[in-house]
Formats: sequence, structure tokens, C-alpha cells
Amino acid sequence: MFGRSYFCGEVTEEAIGEKVTLKGWVQKRRDLGGLIFIDLRDRTGLVQIVFNPDVSTEALSLAEKVRTEYVLDVKGTVIGRSEGSINENLKTGRIEVQAEELTIINEAKTTPFVIADKTDVSEDVRLKYRYLDLRRPVMFETFKMRHQVTKAIRDFLDGEGFLDVETPILTKSTPEGARDYLVPSRVHPGEFYALPQSPQIFKQLMMVGGFERYYQIARCFRDEDLRADRQPEFTQIDIETSFMSQEEIMGLIEKMMQKVMKDVKGMDVSEPFPRMSYEEAMSRFGSDKPDTRFGMELVDLSETVKDSGFKVFASAVANGGQVKAINVKGAATNYSRKDIDGLTEFVSVYGAKGLAWLKSEEDGLKGPISKFFGEEEQAAIQAKLEVSAGDLILFVADKKSVVANALGALRLKLGKELGLIDQSKFSFLWITDWPLLEFDEEADRYFAAHHPFTMPAREDLAKLESNPTSVKAQAYDLVLNGYELGGGSLRIFERDVQEKMFSVLGFTKEQAVEQFGFLLEAFEYGTPPHGGIALGLDRMVMLLAGRTNLRDTIAFPKTASASDLLTDAPGKVSGAQLDELHLSLNIKKDQ
Amino acid sequence: MFGRSYFCGEVTEEAIGEKVTLKGWVQKRRDLGGLIFIDLRDRTGLVQIVFNPDVSTEALSLAEKVRTEYVLDVKGTVIGRSEGSINENLKTGRIEVQAEELTIINEAKTTPFVIADKTDVSEDVRLKYRYLDLRRPVMFETFKMRHQVTKAIRDFLDGEGFLDVETPILTKSTPEGARDYLVPSRVHPGEFYALPQSPQIFKQLMMVGGFERYYQIARCFRDEDLRADRQPEFTQIDIETSFMSQEEIMGLIEKMMQKVMKDVKGMDVSEPFPRMSYEEAMSRFGSDKPDTRFGMELVDLSETVKDSGFKVFASAVANGGQVKAINVKGAATNYSRKDIDGLTEFVSVYGAKGLAWLKSEEDGLKGPISKFFGEEEQAAIQAKLEVSAGDLILFVADKKSVVANALGALRLKLGKELGLIDQSKFSFLWITDWPLLEFDEEADRYFAAHHPFTMPAREDLAKLESNPTSVKAQAYDLVLNGYELGGGSLRIFERDVQEKMFSVLGFTKEQAVEQFGFLLEAFEYGTPPHGGIALGLDRMVMLLAGRTNLRDTIAFPKTASASDLLTDAPGKVSGAQLDELHLSLNIKKDQ
Repeated sequence: MFGRSYFCGEVTEEAIGEKVTLKGWVQKRRDLGGLIFIDLRDRTGLVQIVFNPDVSTEALSLAEKVRTEYVLDVKGTVIGRSEGSINENLKTGRIEVQAEELTIINEAKTTPFVIADKTDVSEDVRLKYRYLDLRRPVMFETFKMRHQVTKAIRDFLDGEGFLDVETPILTKSTPEGARDYLVPSRVHPGEFYALPQSPQIFKQLMMVGGFERYYQIARCFRDEDLRADRQPEFTQIDIETSFMSQEEIMGLIEKMMQKVMKDVKGMDVSEPFPRMSYEEAMSRFGSDKPDTRFGMELVDLSETVKDSGFKVFASAVANGGQVKAINVKGAATNYSRKDIDGLTEFVSVYGAKGLAWLKSEEDGLKGPISKFFGEEEQAAIQAKLEVSAGDLILFVADKKSVVANALGALRLKLGKELGLIDQSKFSFLWITDWPLLEFDEEADRYFAAHHPFTMPAREDLAKLESNPTSVKAQAYDLVLNGYELGGGSLRIFERDVQEKMFSVLGFTKEQAVEQFGFLLEAFEYGTPPHGGIALGLDRMVMLLAGRTNLRDTIAFPKTASASDLLTDAPGKVSGAQLDELHLSLNIKKDQ
Repeated sequence: MFGRSYFCGEVTEEAIGEKVTLKGWVQKRRDLGGLIFIDLRDRTGLVQIVFNPDVSTEALSLAEKVRTEYVLDVKGTVIGRSEGSINENLKTGRIEVQAEELTIINEAKTTPFVIADKTDVSEDVRLKYRYLDLRRPVMFETFKMRHQVTKAIRDFLDGEGFLDVETPILTKSTPEGARDYLVPSRVHPGEFYALPQSPQIFKQLMMVGGFERYYQIARCFRDEDLRADRQPEFTQIDIETSFMSQEEIMGLIEKMMQKVMKDVKGMDVSEPFPRMSYEEAMSRFGSDKPDTRFGMELVDLSETVKDSGFKVFASAVANGGQVKAINVKGAATNYSRKDIDGLTEFVSVYGAKGLAWLKSEEDGLKGPISKFFGEEEQAAIQAKLEVSAGDLILFVADKKSVVANALGALRLKLGKELGLIDQSKFSFLWITDWPLLEFDEEADRYFAAHHPFTMPAREDLAKLESNPTSVKAQAYDLVLNGYELGGGSLRIFERDVQEKMFSVLGFTKEQAVEQFGFLLEAFEYGTPPHGGIALGLDRMVMLLAGRTNLRDTIAFPKTASASDLLTDAPGKVSGAQLDELHLSLNIKKDQ
């Protein structure tokens, strides 16, 4: 215990009568009837200290100087509390410590916010005083959980023969993928390292090197404009294996997540996790990372309504689009026309030009468009959507991608609003059979949907050049509660396939060799079939800890403008530093 | 086992009769009497596969196409070897696998070097083809050991309540310490992040934040010209605690190293480790990281020889210097005058102007300088150095630092040359009572011997401004077999002491606030006493694995010019990338 008898939160009735030494921070001081009560806090919790003139006038008079967040060393005797003063809400609420000696180790100014789980101070202030923010018990508990998650993962992978190997942070910049953070070289004028977006290439090279089972809890970097759930540096659980099939890799990860859920949350989750093709996920949930904790699935009514008198529906189908709907059970009376106008505005963000609706009443479907549907059509709509009286039906008619995005987002929004989501549930799901490539209209070229090293489905190999977008990838994403935990794939391990892939992505032979020649060459020296996965640790912890802000899972996170408000990074550097790096600033006036 | 029955190196006699599937690389193929023998290798070792026409002509004929490093999938039956063909040197040497089916998974060109522990290919070739180098069993075993070391450390620290917390890689550049690697910011024109030289400040802020026990296996960066045992990025076991004394921290680390030695090497090491002050280490071994696996200590003869007729000795002492010697036991006849000339040259590198010597024969001390010493002086020399007939005594007379450096280096060199070092031994040692500050003549200022956050000895605090070099630090280095494994200290946790420290280091008040204002401010909000340590993981693995090259402990290391020969990093980037970062190149012509 190193200089203390107990942590504050761990003094129980068993210690009654013991002389103890405690160390910690002052949560609260109360003066009452000539006594002073101090709640002393450390990372385990609180314990009440009593200063009594009958025990030590010296300690009592020193205690008068004590303020909130002072650091104390208290020696005293554990005593039971009288019946009336027992606090059942506190782990240590049946005892208190009668102080005999007090040392003020360090003082504290008044903190800019109270150290408590609930706080309404702005996040900027919390980030500037992160060292105080971290004292809030809920923050400590999150980082304790993060530790437990990585411990569970490391123990599991160690047991399966995976080696923890570190890959470089100073690597080579490559043109594919997101924007790299660059590091100028002092020794090689005009040259730069890049911070890795993932250890992808190194882990594949380790497979070429016969390591067979690798993992790393790896820092990765992306210089992108940040959204709420992105950070310039983030951490992934990075895994690669040789000679294993897609099913075997998925099975391994399921067992790993089982252990995480058991060790960290005390929950049993059953495997195999459900699997769903990308196609099916988009069709049923309008999302490639569906939250399967609730229903309200998207139902395709194109066939049912394509000949109806409602021109919007009929023409959408005629133009190759779709008409789909969700059934918001029992919500007919909850949502006024004005509410539905709000939902219409919501889906317009996703490109939907409108949101048609029907309400189911005892005597049939009502609403401005009901007149367009005959009895048979109405019956078909009710049957397909399993409509009962009181349900609200919401339709989007548009091209396929808009229908999926709009109704997928609407489903999620309504699921949350209506409390349909069981927050205590953890629903894992695999999404498989991804497209290998996406065509980007703007750039007028194909991009890898995952990354350029993903193995095409063997049976689609022949179509790689003739019909690229039809090629499926041997790829799999793990989804938890509507969030993408991460994705993996089998990798290309043959030079000719990899060259073909680069060619489809628009690389000339020379460009491919210049950027990835070492990898192409490596494939010629006996490369085993291999594959792996990378899971986002920050997001995993966020979901397991029930937090909604990724920054709460990172000890020293950056803001949306990639600043550290605590240390004030980034910052200026000296001209001498720039000279050594063979650089000068080139700042455009308008910035 | 995921698609295979056994790893190659783990098929034993117990498997005889079993149908197995094995996967791996071809180590060797031999054709013998119509049969083909293949040694199949994976990361666990080798197993012999036999292709026999009586079993499968198809497999046999395919086996003819197989070359070294091909990747195979072999199905067959495990059989015992005949008495004459048992290979006791191989774990699987009592069995072989009779092949029934063979699949060539991938082919291989002839590798640029043979995949074997012993190799005489240049390190540059090994680094360019690192993926082949990593196939050499000795390399795999080193990384397996590295994994075991970190696993042991993580398990130990987890058991002691330490939380693994990640600190940022994109941090703020600070002027103290080594040269930073910089990362230009795209969002903040003209500003830069720095890669951390250590997580020092963040771990201290976590202590302010009440985390109490933190560790991280942390990547650190220094843009320095590299020596053989330095890398631009390296890994340290980074630990920080609150409320613990120096002795408690040292005790904790001893227990951690005990577990590492037990888990990884199967060795029991006893604690407490020996402790030695910096002063004593320099005096007895001429080194602040003495190799205590052998004796041959430096003996101070200044008092004995100060009045002798040998002017070199007498004047060295008269000028405030020292005369010290080492006794090279039984080496009188091994070392000719020419050999000793060589040693003289060796010590001259350390500034010694000469190396005096005496040889002990049955009838007394002999050698060119023996005539300067009277009987009494000779007897005193012999007594102090415990001289027996046949010993060689080597003297250096100079100022204290030169004597220590020259004789310290000479002692190490001779210890190795004469085989005095028991290579199976692991000698841990703490060096304590370091000076807090060093005065740099060239810069004409004080530098922190450890870092600016090290706590001065409490009793020396008053001397911090009046006599800085006399102030001792509450710091401790852990030494193993003559290498510094790492160092730690108690930290300053009071604003006024930290401000005084910055002032002694030449910071103005404004500079201190500009660079470290957030830390100074943090100290005012109830900062606990804290301290910690950082141990070099790469070096620890190097010593435990019995390697001599730090690069052999890093999967993808950099060369002395900080290049990655495999991926060819660093490299050029595009003008558009530079523009986005508000930079232009500024390369001097002469470079």
C-alpha cells in the first residue's frame, strides 16, 4: 500500500479500531458543533474524517485551514458511525476516521469547476484544466475501463499465440487514403516521414516474415477536418494472421469480444454474432452499420405502389428508384402535422425531396395521400408493414441510395426519440460481402472501399477489370449498437492480383512500383495467405462506458481544430528549428 | 489451430498415426532414392515431410516443383522415423510426415540470403528485405521475448493497480532536452506539433489529476544523430506514482524486474538490488553505469604516490588530480610492451595523457617506473591493489574526470578481453544521489542532469541558487550489466520550487510561463507528491535476448541516417502537400 493503510474508498467496518494512514484530496469540509468533518477523496472514493478537540486540538486547528482540493495526510483511528449518521449511499458510510494527526501536503486554489461527476462547465474549460477534469470520478472510471478493455484483449490474444509487435510511427507518405501528417527530415533535406494512418503495410510484411499472429494496440493518425467522433490521433486494436479463413478470423474476434464483455461488463454475449451482407443491411436498415437493438425496418413497397395514382411514388419506381417505408408503431397520435414537417426537414438533409405519411386508424389508412391507394394496395401496405391501428407510416420515394440514407437516419432518430432502444443491450453484428470498389464521380476514378490491399472474392477476380463495381471484397465490419467498431479483410498476397488492383485504382505500373514496390516484391518471396482486422479502441471504450463523446475516452484529446487546450499545442517554433529542417513558412495572406 | 492440426515444430511422437494438416515454408528440399524430403518451417520450428511414390505419385510430382521458401499446405500421416534416421537435434526429429496431399499456396524467388540464424549478409540487405530477415528463427525468438517482457510488465503493473493510459504523440515543442521532431499543422498556419521525447509532463499532469498509478509502454522520439544504440523512435516503460517514496518506487521496480526475469528467463533474482551512490560508482568503477559482474575496481593511490619521485604522479596530485590504478590479475605475462602501447592509445581517447604500468613478479614490482617507488610505497601499492605475483597494474594520473573515464573504459575493455564477465549473469544495480545540475562551459549555463522536473534533495533546497552544482537530486538510475536501463526521480510538485529550478536553468519568469505555464498553474490546484521512472524497453530486450544490436529488437528499425531501407522513408512529398501545410522547401545549396 506504500505509505498508506487503505485507499479512501476501501475503509470498511472490518477496519474499525485500526490506526490508519490515509492520503487524498479534500472533497468537502463541514464545521459542525465544534467538530470538523472532511470528506477525503482518492481514486477509489470517499471517506469521512472527523476532527474532534477531545482527540487532538492540534489536528483540529490545522483542519480549520483546510480548503477543498487540499492534499492531506491523515493519521487516525477507524470508528463505527452512530446509527443515525450511517450513510448507506457511501461504500465507507458505516465508518469514519477520528483524526489524530494531520499534515497538509499541498494547498489548492479554488478550482474553476467543482470536482464532481455532474458538471455544466463548458468542455473547453474542462480541456484547459484537464488535470482537474480527470479528478472527476466518472472520468477516472472511464480510463479504468479503458485499461480493463486493453488488458482483456491483450490477455486473450496472448493466449492465442499473438505477438504484440510495435511498428514505426515515422513511416513513408503514401497517396492513397486520408491526408497524412508529415514530419520533415533534418538529415534528408526536402524529405518527409508520414505518421501512419494504420500499421497496415507493416503488419502485412510481418506476415510475409512468418510471424503468423500479430497484434498491436496502435496509434494512428489522420489529418482530416474533425467531426465529433474523430480525433487526429486515435488508437486501434490491430490484428493480422496468416493461414486463417475469414470465418476463422471472425470467430476469433467474437471470442475476444466475449472476453471483453465478460471481464469489463460482467456480461455474457453469445457467439457467433449475427452476420448480414452489406446489401441486406442497406436494404433492411438503410445503413451499413445498423443498430439492431430495435426493429422499425425499412420495407420495400415499390411493387405495391408502382401503379398507384400517387405520381411521386409511381414515377420514382418508373425512374429506377424505390419507395420504402417504416412503420412507427403506435405513433399516429404522437406526431402532429407540424411534427411530421419537422421530420420532412430532417430527411431533406439526406437528399429526400419529401416524406409521405399515412396514419392507421380503426377504419383504415388516413392522410393526404390515402386517396391514391385502392383497397388492395392499402391492404398490401398494411400487410407488408404489419400495421395495426394507431401506427404512423413514413415513406420515402427516391433513388435507392437516398431512400436508404434518409429512411435509415429517420429510423435511428425515431428509435431514440421514442425510447425504443434498450440502452443496456449490446448488439454485435458482422457486415459482410462489401463491394471492393467505389466509383467517385468527381475524381472520375475507382477508390478502394476498404483499402487497396483487400482481397477480391475469388469468384469475382475475372471481373476486376471488366466490371469493377460488381466485385465483392473478402471484407467484414464489426458493428456494435449502430457504430462501426472496425473492419477487416483477407488481403491480396499475390503480386499479379495486387498489380491488377493498383491498375484499377488508376496507378500506372511505374507509380505502383514507386509507391509500393517493396510490397509487390515481398509478395514474390513466399507470402502466406493472410488477413486481419482493426477495431477502434476509443469508440469501443465510449460504447462500453456509456459515454457519448469520444474525447471522454482519451486522456488528453484535441479539439475540433486539432488543438490541445491544456498545453497549447500546436505552437510556434524558432527560425533555427525551421532552418535545420530545410523549411520556410509560406503563409498565404488571406489566412 | 485454425485450419492446421499442429504447428510444424510441435508435431511429436504422440501424434504418430494421426492424419495432419500442416502449413509453412520450405526450409530445404532433398531428393533421395526416388523420395523427396522437405523440411517444412513455421515460427515454431521444422518438421520433415516425406513424399513417397507408394503413397501419392501426385504429391510427389508436385513436390518436384517445390523450391526453398515456397508456402505449402501438406496433408499426411505422422509416422515414426526408423532408428537410423532419428535426429536428436530436432524437436520433431523422432517423427516425419508421410505426405498424401500437397498444395503449393505460393511460390518464392530465390531469397537474397539464406533463412538461417547465422548469416553473414550485410545489415543493409537484411533491413531492405526485413520481411525475410524476420523469418530467421533467432529474430522471431527475440520478438517473442519482447512480447513476453511487455506481458510480464503489464501483468505486474496491473496487479499493483497501475492504469495503462495513452498520452498524445502530437504534443508541444519545448526548448529543453534533445531536438524535437516537428509536425506542421495544416489548420494552424505556421504552427507545429512536436513528437514527444517522453510522456513526462502528461504523466505528471495525470498525477495532478489524481490517477495515482500510471504506466504506459510509450513511443518516444529524438531527432539526434544516431549512435549504434540509439533510434529516432524508441520505446520506454513509463511509470508514475503519487504518494510513494523513492525507496518504495525502487522496491516496486525491483519486484517488476524480478517477475520479468522469472517469466522470461526463468531466473530468480534477489531484491533489494544493490544501491550505490553516483559518487561511489564513479570512484570505484569510473562509470555511472558500472558493470558489476566482475571486479578489477579502480583504486585510489593518490595518497600513496603523491610524494614519490615519479613526477607525473606527484604533480597530478599536486594539481588537484588523482592517481588511480586497476589490477589486471595474472595478466603480467599476457600483455607485452606493445600490447600496453595499444592500451595507452585506447585510454588517450578518453583524454588520458599516458598509461603507467607495473608488473608484479615473485621478487617485487617491475617496470620502467618501479624505480620511483620506495619499499614502503611498493608495499602500500601491493596491499591496496591486493597484488599477487603475475599481476599487471595499470595507472592513470590526471584530473578526476579523466581518470574515471579512462580507467573505467579500460576496465570494461580488459574485462571483456580477458573473459572476466560471466555472460549468464544479470547484475542489477541502482545508482542514487545524482547531482541535480551540470554546468555546461560552452553554453555558460546550468542544465538539468535528469530533467527540469526532478526534485532536489530537501536538505539541499537552500543551496539551489547559491551553489547549484552541490545540490543532489532525488533521482535513481537502474543499471543492468553496465547498461543504463533507465532512470527516475521524485518530481517537483510545488510551484515555487519549480520556478526556482527554471530560474537556475536560465529561464526568465516570462519564458517559464510561456513554455510551462500550464504545469506551474497545475501545481497550484492540489498536486500530490509524485515520482516515477522510465526504462528503455529496446535495450532491456537486447540484454535479455543476449543481442548486441538494438536494431535486432525493433521490427522495422531505422539506419544511422534515420532511414527505413525497406519502405524507403523518408521520401519526397508533393507541392500540394507542402502548400496545405503552409511550407516551402528551403534547401541550402551546399547540402
